[in-house]
Amino acid sequence: MIFSTLKINDSDPIYIQLERHIIGGIKKGDLKKDSKLPSTREVSKYLKISRNSVISAYENLESKGYILTKRGKGTFIAVEGEKQVYEYNVEWDNLVNKYGKVLRDKDIIKSEPKFRRGMISFKSIAPEGELFNLEDFKRALMDSWTYEEVHLLNYGYAKGYQPLIDYLFEYMREKGVSKENKDILITNGFTEGFDIILASLTSPGDVILCEEPTNNTALKVMEAYGLKVVGVSMDKDGMVIEDLKKTLQLYTPKLAYLIPSYNNPTGIVMNSERRKEIYKIFREHSVPIIENGFNEELLYSSSPLEPLAALSGRGNGVVYIGSLSKVLFPGLRIGWIMGDKKLIDILESVKRGRTIHSSFLDQSAFYYYLKSGAFTRYIKNIRKYYRSKYNLIMEMVNKHILYEYVTGEGGLYVFIKLKNNISSRELLNLCYEDGVLFMPGDLFYNNAKGESSLRLGFGRVSDDDIRIGIEIIGKNIERLMKQKGYEGELGD
Amino acid sequence: MIFSTLKINDSDPIYIQLERHIIGGIKKGDLKKDSKLPSTREVSKYLKISRNSVISAYENLESKGYILTKRGKGTFIAVEGEKQVYEYNVEWDNLVNKYGKVLRDKDIIKSEPKFRRGMISFKSIAPEGELFNLEDFKRALMDSWTYEEVHLLNYGYAKGYQPLIDYLFEYMREKGVSKENKDILITNGFTEGFDIILASLTSPGDVILCEEPTNNTALKVMEAYGLKVVGVSMDKDGMVIEDLKKTLQLYTPKLAYLIPSYNNPTGIVMNSERRKEIYKIFREHSVPIIENGFNEELLYSSSPLEPLAALSGRGNGVVYIGSLSKVLFPGLRIGWIMGDKKLIDILESVKRGRTIHSSFLDQSAFYYYLKSGAFTRYIKNIRKYYRSKYNLIMEMVNKHILYEYVTGEGGLYVFIKLKNNISSRELLNLCYEDGVLFMPGDLFYNNAKGESSLRLGFGRVSDDDIRIGIEIIGKNIERLMKQKGYEGELGD
Repeated sequence: MIFSTLKINDSDPIYIQLERHIIGGIKKGDLKKDSKLPSTREVSKYLKISRNSVISAYENLESKGYILTKRGKGTFIAVEGEKQVYEYNVEWDNLVNKYGKVLRDKDIIKSEPKFRRGMISFKSIAPEGELFNLEDFKRALMDSWTYEEVHLLNYGYAKGYQPLIDYLFEYMREKGVSKENKDILITNGFTEGFDIILASLTSPGDVILCEEPTNNTALKVMEAYGLKVVGVSMDKDGMVIEDLKKTLQLYTPKLAYLIPSYNNPTGIVMNSERRKEIYKIFREHSVPIIENGFNEELLYSSSPLEPLAALSGRGNGVVYIGSLSKVLFPGLRIGWIMGDKKLIDILESVKRGRTIHSSFLDQSAFYYYLKSGAFTRYIKNIRKYYRSKYNLIMEMVNKHILYEYVTGEGGLYVFIKLKNNISSRELLNLCYEDGVLFMPGDLFYNNAKGESSLRLGFGRVSDDDIRIGIEIIGKNIERLMKQKGYEGELGD
Repeated sequence: MIFSTLKINDSDPIYIQLERHIIGGIKKGDLKKDSKLPSTREVSKYLKISRNSVISAYENLESKGYILTKRGKGTFIAVEGEKQVYEYNVEWDNLVNKYGKVLRDKDIIKSEPKFRRGMISFKSIAPEGELFNLEDFKRALMDSWTYEEVHLLNYGYAKGYQPLIDYLFEYMREKGVSKENKDILITNGFTEGFDIILASLTSPGDVILCEEPTNNTALKVMEAYGLKVVGVSMDKDGMVIEDLKKTLQLYTPKLAYLIPSYNNPTGIVMNSERRKEIYKIFREHSVPIIENGFNEELLYSSSPLEPLAALSGRGNGVVYIGSLSKVLFPGLRIGWIMGDKKLIDILESVKRGRTIHSSFLDQSAFYYYLKSGAFTRYIKNIRKYYRSKYNLIMEMVNKHILYEYVTGEGGLYVFIKLKNNISSRELLNLCYEDGVLFMPGDLFYNNAKGESSLRLGFGRVSDDDIRIGIEIIGKNIERLMKQKGYEGELGD
């Protein structure tokens, strides 16, 4: 019955609704030419409407030529239903600019070997969802709904959900960062924070000074914006002072981008002295610092390390990007930028021009979660959990892998520099055949330097898989060494 | 008690936790130099820990110089708590690029007269939250949590939440848009969709052809990207064909940007014939079309209008940006781009580089809401509601305002061209003093053309306020006319 999908409303005359429905059916192709319509009596009975309405509709449709009544035979569709289309094709590929091309070409989710069911993957550094305290989150979600209701559903503010902003001010104060002359903008995670800063401050050709290696997303986005990334080498305590000084003689960077508390991919934590030293050097050279507070929350060090942003006191030379995505709930897209009040005012307008604001449902639920104290309990739990995973993977790495050095105590990953310039790409090819995946180190360099290094994320890998996976990696290293004529022993 | 904020954990030795806590207190300034610490006995009792742990902590701190025990007097803080800061200031203003400056300068939330409590504001075109069916949404939120739980909290996919994508394919099919060779990307509302498309396809200096006037956000973002916006005039049925043809003789646009179903600010709905005509002209000139499906859902017209995207069939020449933000739940940031599969593949990578993905909690709750059928019921309701508001405001406008023309049947706003070149800016100044706000038309033009027009959003204004507000606007128009020596009568 063609009318089974028609729902009569109260606002328009019924005969118009019938007409519309039939014309719609013809256009969509549901009513073919020459097919028979039900009689006016049948329709009126089926839809419980007056027969006159149906008669009016049929008359109008007939006068417009859509249907035809044949005496004694019934009413039939009189026109072709096929929709007229005017196909129009564009070669979009030719229209994509450099920015779009770089982001496509450097999208490692598309270009790197893909995970298949049953594989052991050390690629991810996302947190293990099994550890999320779901009941706590559900309660926070309910609290948020109860208190805010419709306010979560209508437009919010580009700057963010005020209770969350206030909470983060306090959170940052506990890290030693002064609120004076500062403001906070909520973003869709670190990625949007970094993106907005680069979009608003840089121009193609600008030099950005970074740790080498640094996180892949940042490298990709900087390249897409046409920026020149200049890396400064690291030792186990952070950026090498001598190298930094030399670099600053050669370049005048627009900005420095640093991950002092948990460099990705190396896991290197810049110690307190080094922080001060490099901070002072940047200050001397008037290079503003973009600090990625990445995974400070997972630090095990005995004395709390202050972010670079804390060193500046009331000063505004450091812009801090915070995110808990690698610790907690990455699916909620929440991060923040804390920096100079006037700068945040500009970035707020930029945010408004790009995404209007971040989800208020996310922000509010997240706030009630943090406020409940659940986060503090959660952090305690996961530190213990990741610590024991770390101990296991290090035991296996020491047993099976010939390395020059390993960095990344604690956290969610370790970074390994292999001995004998073994290519981590060749290693990945072999391992992939054996069902094991990891991140080849070259992804974190914008030159050829990372070729014999790899990052192993272990947060979401089971203990058994860690044991099996590392052994497979170790065996394939041996294979490669034999191929290349190297001899080697663990512990060399 | 300094230890009231200390929570002992199970992972680290207790004396280390005590040490850290005291050092932290000193650094933060909570423990001033020469202030007295509680005795080891008091601490052990208070925290229910062994006294030996406290003694060890105090001994270590004393050996490091942080505290000093004076025999018979107690233990005292021995160092200055003031944190050493190295203030560092940057003139961020000088670092902001053109893009950031345009978005700051054109941020109408900051530059336009601000709403104050008690005012009557016709500025907003956001939906009236009172009409949201909150119980339906709450149920959807709960359903979404029940089915997805942890999946909403860990990383999702840049393209979006698959059930929502599938739902939107079907939703677009009902609008007549073919899914063949197409794909969908979920974005943070229309704004991010438009932003991602421009960022990926255009270069400074490119010509974008638009309706004149067009929505302020689009104008602002296009200017920020350094694009040349060329407007084509409209009559009551949409873009004027002759003007379009002339413009295409003068320019070779990179893209056309159109809001055919509910132009913002005019509310003009491009009719079926006009759609086909202008579509064919763009196709002839190989100008790809970005179609903003804005508020199609509110259309009252008797026969359903197909989006331009439907005219192309399997073709890819039209990219459609959808959003329900002006109809439903703008606080959930959800929109979508539907277009050529290969183009969406690129835009997906761009999205990943900018915000990783949109909130999965938003997307999933929204999906369960749509799926439940609540949306269909809601739309029926609000059409009736806005229709009666529209009738009221038109009655008042006809009574009080001398206009050349009014456009925007139905919808959430009307657009008025005043007689006698009355300046809507001068009018706004007078009205603001009387507590009435509206959007001056110049915000929707990138030239001086809009100076005697204004947009009145009425969706969130009470009936009483509509009556009072329009009368005030009318009186101020009369004042301005007298000042300028015009005579006029309503209905001239």
